[in-house]
Amino acid sequence: FKELWRDSCNFSTKALEMGRKDPRKAVYALKMGFALALVSLLIFWKMPIEDASQYSIWAILTVIVMFEFSIGATFIKGFNRGLGTFAAGILAFLFAGLSILAGPWDKIVIVISFFITGYCASYLRLYPTMAPYDYGFRVFVLTFCILMVAGNRNGGYVLAILTRLVLIALGACMCFVINICVYPIWSGDDLHHLVVNNFNELATSLEGCVNGYLRCVNYERTNSRFMTQASSDQMYLGYKTVIESASKEQTLLGFAIWEPPHGRYRKLRYPWRTYVKASNTVRHCAYTVMALHGCIMSEIQAPPEKRKVFLEELQQVSAEGARVLRELGCKIDSMEKLGGFKNILDQVHVAAEHLQKKIDHKSFLLVKSESWEVGSPRKDLEELDDDPPQQHLGLKCFSETSIYAHKPLTQLPDEDFSPKQNNLRRLVPWPSSFLLVESDGLLVREDEAKTYESASSLSLATFASLLIEFVARLQFVVDCFEELSEEAGFIDPDVVVLKE
Amino acid sequence: FKELWRDSCNFSTKALEMGRKDPRKAVYALKMGFALALVSLLIFWKMPIEDASQYSIWAILTVIVMFEFSIGATFIKGFNRGLGTFAAGILAFLFAGLSILAGPWDKIVIVISFFITGYCASYLRLYPTMAPYDYGFRVFVLTFCILMVAGNRNGGYVLAILTRLVLIALGACMCFVINICVYPIWSGDDLHHLVVNNFNELATSLEGCVNGYLRCVNYERTNSRFMTQASSDQMYLGYKTVIESASKEQTLLGFAIWEPPHGRYRKLRYPWRTYVKASNTVRHCAYTVMALHGCIMSEIQAPPEKRKVFLEELQQVSAEGARVLRELGCKIDSMEKLGGFKNILDQVHVAAEHLQKKIDHKSFLLVKSESWEVGSPRKDLEELDDDPPQQHLGLKCFSETSIYAHKPLTQLPDEDFSPKQNNLRRLVPWPSSFLLVESDGLLVREDEAKTYESASSLSLATFASLLIEFVARLQFVVDCFEELSEEAGFIDPDVVVLKE
Repeated sequence: FKELWRDSCNFSTKALEMGRKDPRKAVYALKMGFALALVSLLIFWKMPIEDASQYSIWAILTVIVMFEFSIGATFIKGFNRGLGTFAAGILAFLFAGLSILAGPWDKIVIVISFFITGYCASYLRLYPTMAPYDYGFRVFVLTFCILMVAGNRNGGYVLAILTRLVLIALGACMCFVINICVYPIWSGDDLHHLVVNNFNELATSLEGCVNGYLRCVNYERTNSRFMTQASSDQMYLGYKTVIESASKEQTLLGFAIWEPPHGRYRKLRYPWRTYVKASNTVRHCAYTVMALHGCIMSEIQAPPEKRKVFLEELQQVSAEGARVLRELGCKIDSMEKLGGFKNILDQVHVAAEHLQKKIDHKSFLLVKSESWEVGSPRKDLEELDDDPPQQHLGLKCFSETSIYAHKPLTQLPDEDFSPKQNNLRRLVPWPSSFLLVESDGLLVREDEAKTYESASSLSLATFASLLIEFVARLQFVVDCFEELSEEAGFIDPDVVVLKE
Repeated sequence: FKELWRDSCNFSTKALEMGRKDPRKAVYALKMGFALALVSLLIFWKMPIEDASQYSIWAILTVIVMFEFSIGATFIKGFNRGLGTFAAGILAFLFAGLSILAGPWDKIVIVISFFITGYCASYLRLYPTMAPYDYGFRVFVLTFCILMVAGNRNGGYVLAILTRLVLIALGACMCFVINICVYPIWSGDDLHHLVVNNFNELATSLEGCVNGYLRCVNYERTNSRFMTQASSDQMYLGYKTVIESASKEQTLLGFAIWEPPHGRYRKLRYPWRTYVKASNTVRHCAYTVMALHGCIMSEIQAPPEKRKVFLEELQQVSAEGARVLRELGCKIDSMEKLGGFKNILDQVHVAAEHLQKKIDHKSFLLVKSESWEVGSPRKDLEELDDDPPQQHLGLKCFSETSIYAHKPLTQLPDEDFSPKQNNLRRLVPWPSSFLLVESDGLLVREDEAKTYESASSLSLATFASLLIEFVARLQFVVDCFEELSEEAGFIDPDVVVLKE
């Protein structure tokens, strides 16, 4: 019991916390309570029609079912409810007429009508394009059944059906009035912030990935690490948020396009779709960041000293790329055009070019030229010796004949408990399968070790290529931003300065 | 009107098609219609209590709301409905008692109770972990309101509440009986097939990507191509299905764990979670395939003649990788252990090793060694000349001083209409930004062209690295398959053979 008490205390603290963080949620709940209390007054209103106060439940039901968090969602629910109710009303009239015509067989007509309605509605509900109207179908069947039951009981179908339709309309009106007039919550606002947030999240994630790669962050190599361990990671959370926001964006877009012009979005047909398109271009970049993160979590890792060679250039590109994303996010948030920043991509392109040149100059670090079919440059390398420190590094890499076993930088406390063999297997899963079948005493055949070493160096090239691809994709983001800024009529910052 | 008629004809054809493709949908609709007709018989049953036939609407409502496609979903809905109704019943009793105590102030008590209930339920509904019980909260508020209204009207709270609860239970029972006894539809089956399908889809997608890359498939370079054009593509659809199935899997998992043992899944606590885990490892591989596809859609493309050099090895790896995936999918489908295929990964590892060795031997194709700081192997290359055809290819690549402009293989009919400059910009977005600022007559500075050329060759290395990473990740899939086959008690094919 004590535990239960503590749990419920814990829960209520968290629930209060939620309200403090997003007061709109508390406001929504207050509005809902208010609307419900208001509509419940209908119960006590003695209407001219006998038994009428009982019909008030229809208005209450409509409020419960239609009162959604945002205004767009309320509109959609209202549309569903309206259409479903209207169709049900017409059908109920038809079958009521039939059952009266059938005379003594009216009960059979009613049962058959139930079967047909239930069958058709359930079948069509499963049709893929009907998914958004799922709710409408349920309302339709429900309303039809209630109308038929009520009509059958009273014998007065027309009155029963009309009274209910009027009360449903009353409830719907109350929903709209209270939801729009009292502290409105717009899905458009949410969508706007979500898109801006995506820009910033991706920028953070990009910087995190590149820095993580340069710091040679290692994940413990377990089977489930890509699901559990990485999940607490900032760089992982960043691009994951961007990639997973797709469905949320679609939902918000569905609500936002139903909303009338409001607040800062004063255009009549506001280009919400272009917002989502901009977010899609950001997501397109996010896939590259995911691939970059994949390099960090990869089975095959480049040695740290080689990563250090490209440190400055990689950091420059990531810093510039993140800057562009943040700049654009900020511009969307303040609804400004690019203005003087027309060539916003210039700096990041220069940085990417530097990285590319560096790769060209140092590409001997990335490949194993000793096995070239057309002759090895190794000898030249030793003879020339015009750049001693670089040379040293290069030679060091070439002379590595043993497999490069990367150790986790953070020593794990339970490392001693795991059996050695298993640990090795987890560390280097792929080459280990060769290790296990090995029987001639040698732990690793030199041949395979070299192959692995070479692969590990090429993974650095992969990382750099992906980063350059990221920069190339930024072009789409900028293009889409310009399209959005035109369509949504963003302010031109230069013009504002001139006016002052 | 003619158009409307044709549209509706079209729609009904498609709707019939849906039923033919998946007869379960038609069966579900039939079951729903049958349940509804059965429960509607209650209307005509003259119960001992006055006005009782009207209460039958409660049973009907329960059927409409609870009758879901799969048995798991029906159980969850039933649980939600039961809990919500029960809580609402208790609360209604409490407030009914209060309002009777309040005497003349009973109306005020009722209105306040509506407000409090509406407020609390709406607020808690927004709590993140409460999302699956959203429906339960709605049922709770709805039931509470209806009970209060009915009780207030009749003055007899106890009878009103109890009758309704009994009818709700009756409707729920009917749902369970019909849904389980008549042609049951299990979510577990769906989940099983979804997971098997993921294995096959990814295999197809992998082969498609590698073959597409080798055939140098080009996408028209427009801003939106990564959203629209690729969507009709088989290789794109394959990994997209795998990646996007995550949420569907979670939904089905949520249903499947509620289902009792049935059919082939006879274990009491069947490891549905491990199914999803296996699918997660496949998804982990799918991200690599997505990155491979990213190479095809990339701004920076490797020249076709260089791709040809690695043709055989790349195809071998993709064929072996796809074979492993299909084999595992087939094993899960037939619920067999790996058995004799213990070393299922051997062949694909060998293929990947061959690819890696080839890269080592031919890595001069991937880098621009002429700009190496430690001296160029170019001279050796010309002097040695021990491998004429390869040599020729290598020299050809080195001698490319102009930018490698890749033309779409499929000539587009509207190509002539687009302005040249714009077309170029779309073709090579990134270096084009340098083109546009160029003013000294030269179209492309040689320096930049070389950088681009080098990047384009490295992109081939990226492709190969990603493919090798894919192979490395296959280990997780196999590990997880073994875990699943143990937990779910798959049949050992070898043991079966021995028994015969």
